[in-house]
Amino acid sequence: IDEDDGARVYALCEKLHPADIADLFELLDEDERPRMARAISDLMGVEVIAELNDWVREALVEALPADVVADIAEQLDTDDAVAMIEDLDHDEQQAVLAELDPEDRAAIEAALSYPEETAGRLMSREFVAVHETMTVGDLIDFLREHRELPTEFWEVFIVDPMHRPIGTCALSWILRTPRNIPLHDVMVRDQTLIPATMDQEEIALRFQKYALISAAVVDEAGRLIGQITVDDIVHIIQEEASEDILRLSGAGDGDINEPILMTVRTRLSWLVVNLGTAILASSVVGLFQGAIAKFALLAVLMPIVSGMGGNAGTQTLAVVVRALATNQLTDSNTWRMIFRELRIAMANGFALGALIGGGTWLLFSNPLLGAVIGTAMVVNNLTAGLAGILVPVTLDRFRVDPAVSSAVFVTTATDTMGFFSFLGLAVLTGLA
Amino acid sequence: IDEDDGARVYALCEKLHPADIADLFELLDEDERPRMARAISDLMGVEVIAELNDWVREALVEALPADVVADIAEQLDTDDAVAMIEDLDHDEQQAVLAELDPEDRAAIEAALSYPEETAGRLMSREFVAVHETMTVGDLIDFLREHRELPTEFWEVFIVDPMHRPIGTCALSWILRTPRNIPLHDVMVRDQTLIPATMDQEEIALRFQKYALISAAVVDEAGRLIGQITVDDIVHIIQEEASEDILRLSGAGDGDINEPILMTVRTRLSWLVVNLGTAILASSVVGLFQGAIAKFALLAVLMPIVSGMGGNAGTQTLAVVVRALATNQLTDSNTWRMIFRELRIAMANGFALGALIGGGTWLLFSNPLLGAVIGTAMVVNNLTAGLAGILVPVTLDRFRVDPAVSSAVFVTTATDTMGFFSFLGLAVLTGLA
Repeated sequence: IDEDDGARVYALCEKLHPADIADLFELLDEDERPRMARAISDLMGVEVIAELNDWVREALVEALPADVVADIAEQLDTDDAVAMIEDLDHDEQQAVLAELDPEDRAAIEAALSYPEETAGRLMSREFVAVHETMTVGDLIDFLREHRELPTEFWEVFIVDPMHRPIGTCALSWILRTPRNIPLHDVMVRDQTLIPATMDQEEIALRFQKYALISAAVVDEAGRLIGQITVDDIVHIIQEEASEDILRLSGAGDGDINEPILMTVRTRLSWLVVNLGTAILASSVVGLFQGAIAKFALLAVLMPIVSGMGGNAGTQTLAVVVRALATNQLTDSNTWRMIFRELRIAMANGFALGALIGGGTWLLFSNPLLGAVIGTAMVVNNLTAGLAGILVPVTLDRFRVDPAVSSAVFVTTATDTMGFFSFLGLAVLTGLA
Repeated sequence: IDEDDGARVYALCEKLHPADIADLFELLDEDERPRMARAISDLMGVEVIAELNDWVREALVEALPADVVADIAEQLDTDDAVAMIEDLDHDEQQAVLAELDPEDRAAIEAALSYPEETAGRLMSREFVAVHETMTVGDLIDFLREHRELPTEFWEVFIVDPMHRPIGTCALSWILRTPRNIPLHDVMVRDQTLIPATMDQEEIALRFQKYALISAAVVDEAGRLIGQITVDDIVHIIQEEASEDILRLSGAGDGDINEPILMTVRTRLSWLVVNLGTAILASSVVGLFQGAIAKFALLAVLMPIVSGMGGNAGTQTLAVVVRALATNQLTDSNTWRMIFRELRIAMANGFALGALIGGGTWLLFSNPLLGAVIGTAMVVNNLTAGLAGILVPVTLDRFRVDPAVSSAVFVTTATDTMGFFSFLGLAVLTGLA
């Protein structure tokens, strides 16, 4: 794509949607990106910047002088500007803020005063709020006259004299209603309000559950201070669901644009924790060294029992972590889910136990060995089912993200119990 | 919650949003649900039915006579009606269709003629399409007069005389424009069209990328036949991301409301495949039985090498599967990603190898054993990194969903290579 004939690159990009230019930019090697940015500098508008991956944007923004960043920030919506500035370190942030208009600066500083990933950071401060005494006609005239309003909005919020939201009007209702009808006859009073401190995961669940297009954000006093629209939420839903899959596997944020040293650090720390638990599990095997020396076939078969327990545990864990994340699993149905998983574990355990037990018996003409491995398989499947649900549910009770740490506990349980039940039974039954 | 005093249950539910009633319903035990449905029968409106989990709804719908289902279907939007009817078996479907109005019947049959999970099934047939010669004033008058239009819509589609979409108008632009301006001066001509046969995953990516609120669905001739709105897409994004996490772990759909026998069947078939690969890996251990009988410590340490490879492989796999699903990983950056993962694997491998190698040396005062396990750890980390990216990328090339089958291949590779490199090196170096 990117030779030094910038003109051709330019011609190619000219016809593209900003989101596509951002994608193209991300696909380039890191060292090609500045060249590309220079070649299409006047196409690298704010829309492209807003669409860039966080890491790619951070690298680009850090390379720009503070006044250029401030210029870009002023053209962005508050929420996009905040996303761009929040990742800068403190000094750079201050330098950019100092270059901003007082008004934009106040808006961005207010947003930055809320914790990361809360409504206060995500919301846009541009919205339309009017009083219920207005008629449909008044509202349309008001919208036509006020040029500084946001260009795209999907609902009008109705507020009381204290600026507290009391209802909303979808634009389609307004368009379909005669001019003389007052808004309080058009609006719905039932609405989902988002406190400014609400976490983005919770916001995403509300949008999804109530099929919202936009929602009013309120401060502690219940006053309307911003709106969140569904197009921002779509990214968050994707992010939160991806986060679970990546955290379960210990891959951190797992962003392919993340600096490689940071990736190594995240993954390695998870692997070191797992090394500890692997050593713990293998010390169980150490207890049975004598038996293994006498009957080495035990060492051949033992990874099957522990590995299958790990697989079954991972299945339960994935289901439970998603059910917790989407609020499908709550206090009221925890016991039902535990019994459900136990019944599944029992069924799977007996089926797999019969299969491996029968196969071992036939292959090695050793019925006792078959019985031992079959029984160990049932025991370890039950361990997997129980650990797969109890570990994430317990972590969730203690407000620890179950996606982050469950897998270590579950595989430790299945590895240890797999080795212990198989080798223990082998010794008990006098096999070795 | 659910004693037999239906009145109290009724009073409780009366104030709730339909989505909350649906949630409450799902939290109940299966055998309590009919009782609840009876107690609040007139609150179990179409909105509640539309919000129910697929499995719960299917069980409920199957228990109802065809004419009642048809009544409900007629009150739902086409897309919700299709979602309700598509899961019924053929005979029941025909019985319900026979009870429908000819018009609704035609719409639902047309939707059912498209494959599952495509735009044709998901789209709603209620939308607003007008010609570009209309002025803003004409449009507002048209909307006020036509009572049968959908109550909620966010964009107006502009079509040519052949009913092909040529642009869209967000309602906010219409509200802010004087009555005498023609629509062709307000609309944007750039729009994302969704072919009726497009898969829902692809549709979700488009909505996300271009921050769409609604989009026009077109047939093969390019004629506008429906619209998809973002509130339906929000569910799909959540579903598709959850699907990946569940499929990676072999838990199928992983829905907690799925009938238990179906869950056992899905999970068990995955476990049986894994049993096969576990046996394959353990047969590698079988090759080294003699060495293990001589030096049982090898059996104690070998699960550490294979297990750590499995963990590292899972990390890479999770990152790659998500990057593929979100179109971040494409042909043009595959090689860059492969080198990235190899560098990470190298770094992690050397760190973990040094750790376990040094530890083994010190603990067992056996420097050769330490060197062997350290080297095996490096080899298996590289195997994990390579398999973690090459397996899903290759499956994706052959249009197989990488989330479904990658994990088996990757863990087979890391288990086999873990055992083989550690035990093989031990024999080669004369340790046993």
